[in-house]
Amino acid sequence: MVIVMGPDATPEDTDNLVELAASVGGEAYVTRGAGRTIIGLVGDVERFANLDLRAQPGVSDVRRTSAPYRLVSQENAVSRSVVRVGGVPLGGDTTTVIAGPCAVETPEQTLAAARMAQEAGASLLRGGAYKPRTSPYSFQGLGEAGLKILSDVRDETGLPIVTEVVDAADVELVASHADMLQIGARNMQNFALLHAAGEAGRPVLLKRGMTATIEEWLMAAEHIAQRGNLDIVLCERGIRTFENATRNTLDISAVPVAQKLSHLPVIVDPSHSGGQRDLVLPLSRAAIAAGADGVIVDVHPAPETALCDGPQALVDADLAELASAVRALSGLLGRPLAAAPAPEAAVV
Amino acid sequence: MVIVMGPDATPEDTDNLVELAASVGGEAYVTRGAGRTIIGLVGDVERFANLDLRAQPGVSDVRRTSAPYRLVSQENAVSRSVVRVGGVPLGGDTTTVIAGPCAVETPEQTLAAARMAQEAGASLLRGGAYKPRTSPYSFQGLGEAGLKILSDVRDETGLPIVTEVVDAADVELVASHADMLQIGARNMQNFALLHAAGEAGRPVLLKRGMTATIEEWLMAAEHIAQRGNLDIVLCERGIRTFENATRNTLDISAVPVAQKLSHLPVIVDPSHSGGQRDLVLPLSRAAIAAGADGVIVDVHPAPETALCDGPQALVDADLAELASAVRALSGLLGRPLAAAPAPEAAVV
Amino acid sequence: MVIVMGPDATPEDTDNLVELAASVGGEAYVTRGAGRTIIGLVGDVERFANLDLRAQPGVSDVRRTSAPYRLVSQENAVSRSVVRVGGVPLGGDTTTVIAGPCAVETPEQTLAAARMAQEAGASLLRGGAYKPRTSPYSFQGLGEAGLKILSDVRDETGLPIVTEVVDAADVELVASHADMLQIGARNMQNFALLHAAGEAGRPVLLKRGMTATIEEWLMAAEHIAQRGNLDIVLCERGIRTFENATRNTLDISAVPVAQKLSHLPVIVDPSHSGGQRDLVLPLSRAAIAAGADGVIVDVHPAPETALCDGPQALVDADLAELASAVRALSGLLGRPLAAAPAPEAAVV
Amino acid sequence: MVIVMGPDATPEDTDNLVELAASVGGEAYVTRGAGRTIIGLVGDVERFANLDLRAQPGVSDVRRTSAPYRLVSQENAVSRSVVRVGGVPLGGDTTTVIAGPCAVETPEQTLAAARMAQEAGASLLRGGAYKPRTSPYSFQGLGEAGLKILSDVRDETGLPIVTEVVDAADVELVASHADMLQIGARNMQNFALLHAAGEAGRPVLLKRGMTATIEEWLMAAEHIAQRGNLDIVLCERGIRTFENATRNTLDISAVPVAQKLSHLPVIVDPSHSGGQRDLVLPLSRAAIAAGADGVIVDVHPAPETALCDGPQALVDADLAELASAVRALSGLLGRPLAAAPAPEAAVV
Repeated sequence: MVIVMGPDATPEDTDNLVELAASVGGEAYVTRGAGRTIIGLVGDVERFANLDLRAQPGVSDVRRTSAPYRLVSQENAVSRSVVRVGGVPLGGDTTTVIAGPCAVETPEQTLAAARMAQEAGASLLRGGAYKPRTSPYSFQGLGEAGLKILSDVRDETGLPIVTEVVDAADVELVASHADMLQIGARNMQNFALLHAAGEAGRPVLLKRGMTATIEEWLMAAEHIAQRGNLDIVLCERGIRTFENATRNTLDISAVPVAQKLSHLPVIVDPSHSGGQRDLVLPLSRAAIAAGADGVIVDVHPAPETALCDGPQALVDADLAELASAVRALSGLLGRPLAAAPAPEAAVV
Repeated sequence: MVIVMGPDATPEDTDNLVELAASVGGEAYVTRGAGRTIIGLVGDVERFANLDLRAQPGVSDVRRTSAPYRLVSQENAVSRSVVRVGGVPLGGDTTTVIAGPCAVETPEQTLAAARMAQEAGASLLRGGAYKPRTSPYSFQGLGEAGLKILSDVRDETGLPIVTEVVDAADVELVASHADMLQIGARNMQNFALLHAAGEAGRPVLLKRGMTATIEEWLMAAEHIAQRGNLDIVLCERGIRTFENATRNTLDISAVPVAQKLSHLPVIVDPSHSGGQRDLVLPLSRAAIAAGADGVIVDVHPAPETALCDGPQALVDADLAELASAVRALSGLLGRPLAAAPAPEAAVV
Repeated sequence: MVIVMGPDATPEDTDNLVELAASVGGEAYVTRGAGRTIIGLVGDVERFANLDLRAQPGVSDVRRTSAPYRLVSQENAVSRSVVRVGGVPLGGDTTTVIAGPCAVETPEQTLAAARMAQEAGASLLRGGAYKPRTSPYSFQGLGEAGLKILSDVRDETGLPIVTEVVDAADVELVASHADMLQIGARNMQNFALLHAAGEAGRPVLLKRGMTATIEEWLMAAEHIAQRGNLDIVLCERGIRTFENATRNTLDISAVPVAQKLSHLPVIVDPSHSGGQRDLVLPLSRAAIAAGADGVIVDVHPAPETALCDGPQALVDADLAELASAVRALSGLLGRPLAAAPAPEAAVV
Repeated sequence: MVIVMGPDATPEDTDNLVELAASVGGEAYVTRGAGRTIIGLVGDVERFANLDLRAQPGVSDVRRTSAPYRLVSQENAVSRSVVRVGGVPLGGDTTTVIAGPCAVETPEQTLAAARMAQEAGASLLRGGAYKPRTSPYSFQGLGEAGLKILSDVRDETGLPIVTEVVDAADVELVASHADMLQIGARNMQNFALLHAAGEAGRPVLLKRGMTATIEEWLMAAEHIAQRGNLDIVLCERGIRTFENATRNTLDISAVPVAQKLSHLPVIVDPSHSGGQRDLVLPLSRAAIAAGADGVIVDVHPAPETALCDGPQALVDADLAELASAVRALSGLLGRPLAAAPAPEAAVV
């Protein structure tokens, strides 16, 4: 059972409902996103029914849900969610491009990549300071120093920052620098990390695990939402199959399926799914055409020396083509490209 | 090693080359498609090198190949193939829609579905007279009676016919009625069937096996080509993965990957991959945007009573939307929709 | 609905029941295996119920089934099936080893491999005369000449022959030489071939498709049974997964699961699933321990020059170890190794 | 490059080698297991070669490795590892059974399950106090209270404790109660957790991720080893495939493959892979027969009311059969069942 609060509901209205739920032995999970507050109720449905919840101040709607992920379920949504990252919308009537280097290596490389991102039509900058790597002997990221570089590049370019966090213990630090926290595929069921991200006060980009079903992905989002944060964007990044011609298999159907099951925006990562530069453009086009709310792509000023995933990073020659393709397609579908904020506006 | 013949090469030129190859102990496989003839050579490369093949009459080019599928490899292609089915092009500068019922049930149902196909923008009619079914107790198709229905509907509508053949013993019969033979996913490695199809004198639509790698799919096409027929169209129809929210997982990346590895046209079946009506439109858009040469979709006048795969068949309300989406996208990408021939032109 | 006939039922009893079923508009599929006859009924259950089938002559039992594969379902079985191949039992109280070369190459190689098979504890000889190969340029088998070699080696050694058939058109020829027909993984849903095998009067070894679910595998067996032949042995040979350290992933759980769902014997192919010689012994032990009714292994006198799958073939040094391991384990589990018939007994 | 230290090497010998490596600009990772110390070197191989490492005090051997997981690679092992958990050996000449409830629920349920574990032949007790659950609304485990229950049950029964840790922040607490830390499948690439476990001074049971390749699994073990802890046991628990008749697909081949690539012991979890009670016995037999160093199974005194995974837990009737089967098979293979320590001996 879910209570959808109206736009004018006050914190007192919400507290009142939590107390009401408790008064009949239930639990209430309050979660907030840009422009919406939802309260999930766990407990005896019949006792809730006696409370006349619909008549309480601030309540817009009360719904029964059949999905196990009640807070992120489409069933409970008045409309699809729009998540705002440093002023840039994800979801709704626009299409958003996020771009940047796989890993932050130096200030120069990061700034150059940010300029490339802008050329590619991006309004958000991605870049990893903490890298989860299969080998303990590979480059693990610059850590806090990388976060500072990202922060400086945001000041310079105005692009809000999306960056990965890999350990619950780092969430507070990363959230103090980033505009959006990314949870990577390997950590999709690292529940301690999901809970910390749910309490960090930043929007979260949740990548689908390489072998996660769509239902498990939405349940992972529910773990974040249940801790109070409904500003979640889902990212399809390829699943693991028997096919080895591509790094992973982009599950393009996951875009319409997840959008039907959940009100959360869904974007696509064509770089990590294909793992090859020349697949990024056709897969980006496919993503937008399938209805994705955006794409997140790797760019690098010198992919041949990149410390991470160079073969899939777009180079200068590709940027204008990507921007033009995404612009044309998103226009055709009636969801024009989101604009980047002016430099000063993006500072958090 | 492959010999690409020029447009003016004569049958004698080809015979001459086959004899030359034999004279040094090699084998030559001659394969012909619309507007092109290729000869694959198997044997001692050094002895072939002594033959001065490039100087022989009719030869346009001689190429070494690294791919195990030499005749269908992109490496040997002057340009991407265009396959003509009853006058309708597949591949090249156009985008082609194939539509029709999963199974031929009655003359009325087939004609109604053909009219729906036209409304959806289709220039080719699909429909199964022989159905490979998991259960021996399910409807197995009307067989020859179904072929006659298809033939009549072609006369009535002008739409050339694409229909499945499931047994090598039926190839001649099916080829006498159909404009294009379809090899289904379950039979992708039924080599006897591939060989018979390679000798039947009809273009072939080769569906990817549910668990076939792209390389195995191209090798299956090579089995057809080696028997003399280069008019092959590849069809991605979803692979089997752990994800159960969709019937199969559409491997959208297979489109650009197969087009890079082979000169054959590649189309997508959004109906069988998703298995759900409401996925057909987004997956069709994704397919065209990814660069597919066409789509093949299920339509049915009364899906709730269909003898096969009703839940994925488009209904009347969907047709105009599909036609409009495909038209807009294919136009944007510079590859307008192929037109259907006039009724009389399609008669074989 | 299924009728289980008693051991003393006559052909007339069976005919009578088929007519009875037809008299109420139903269809009856009669299938026979070693020591058992089952009749599957398709039609209106209530009308069948009025027939008092249980009282008809020759009827031992009448059962309702919930499985879609009614004839091969465990629900309808009085006991697990024993299939006899040239006098050698598969299933029941014994454990059976089948061994031989992947492909028949020469009389000498085949005879040498048969001697190796005997040393490995085998009572049946496998060997391919028709090879379904991914590449049209690979060795496709000796065809009829290979069948004659197998026949000669059976006369010499007494080992009954198991050999693959890949085309429905070849079934009669292959059945005239072989004691058991093998349907390979690629052809598991080649329904024309399954039907031909169901009518050929020989026991059938049905390999699981690389990507087939257990239910689809049993449905493929049902296609054979429905054509009258219940002497079917299932063979698990590895499925396709993301793991590339082995050629395929042996689904060891499929052994107890298939045995629970069906009365047919289930054996394991440790050679093709692992694809590596040093995995054959541990996987054979695992198969027997899991309860498999036998194993089928590749042996070759000179694997380094084998025309097919040399790297997985056991060599002389391995044979005694395999025989000893299988003997010890099958003894421990109370299902001793089946003995080979004397040379003359095996001649068909 | 790896240095294998001799049994009499002193800490000073190790320190000396770390300094030597640093003196030529390299890095040295020291890792210790029961009875062995290995030093992994990262840096310029030629400069290391000049150091005459073999002549240094305490050095037993110096080896070059080709595997990316150098510390856990079989190439560097004088012999297979034996890991000791509260006095109970895992690996080597014995076969070890670990058993217990999926989740610790109450003191009574845990003690009853421990008694069942003993009856099943177990010498180690498993039980979860922290449960990673797909749904945030499912039982998440008793946390610290659960650890105390486990500790009490160890005092009562003498069985050392294996329990899961899901968050790096909890490692110290869990290690203060448990004899062995378990890293679950979902956390196999939670690198922060792996690193914390590598520094905790307790043996680690590392489950394979549901979609992890064997190489990735060994790389995850390398993350633990690199932090100083070589007492790692690998646990195969099923991978995710298209087959839905079982919860996961037990990759039985992973046992011999991982044992060939790594010196670490490998055990099998037949409960979680199959997900069904009646598969536990055949899969346990298969695991031992394939050469596994042990099995870990779920038992529960009242599975129908279990808070987690009841359907796969063994019940009273199954215990003697499992014990007897494992005893017979492990005896046949020359690796008898490990004995549990006396109650007082197990106290840590």
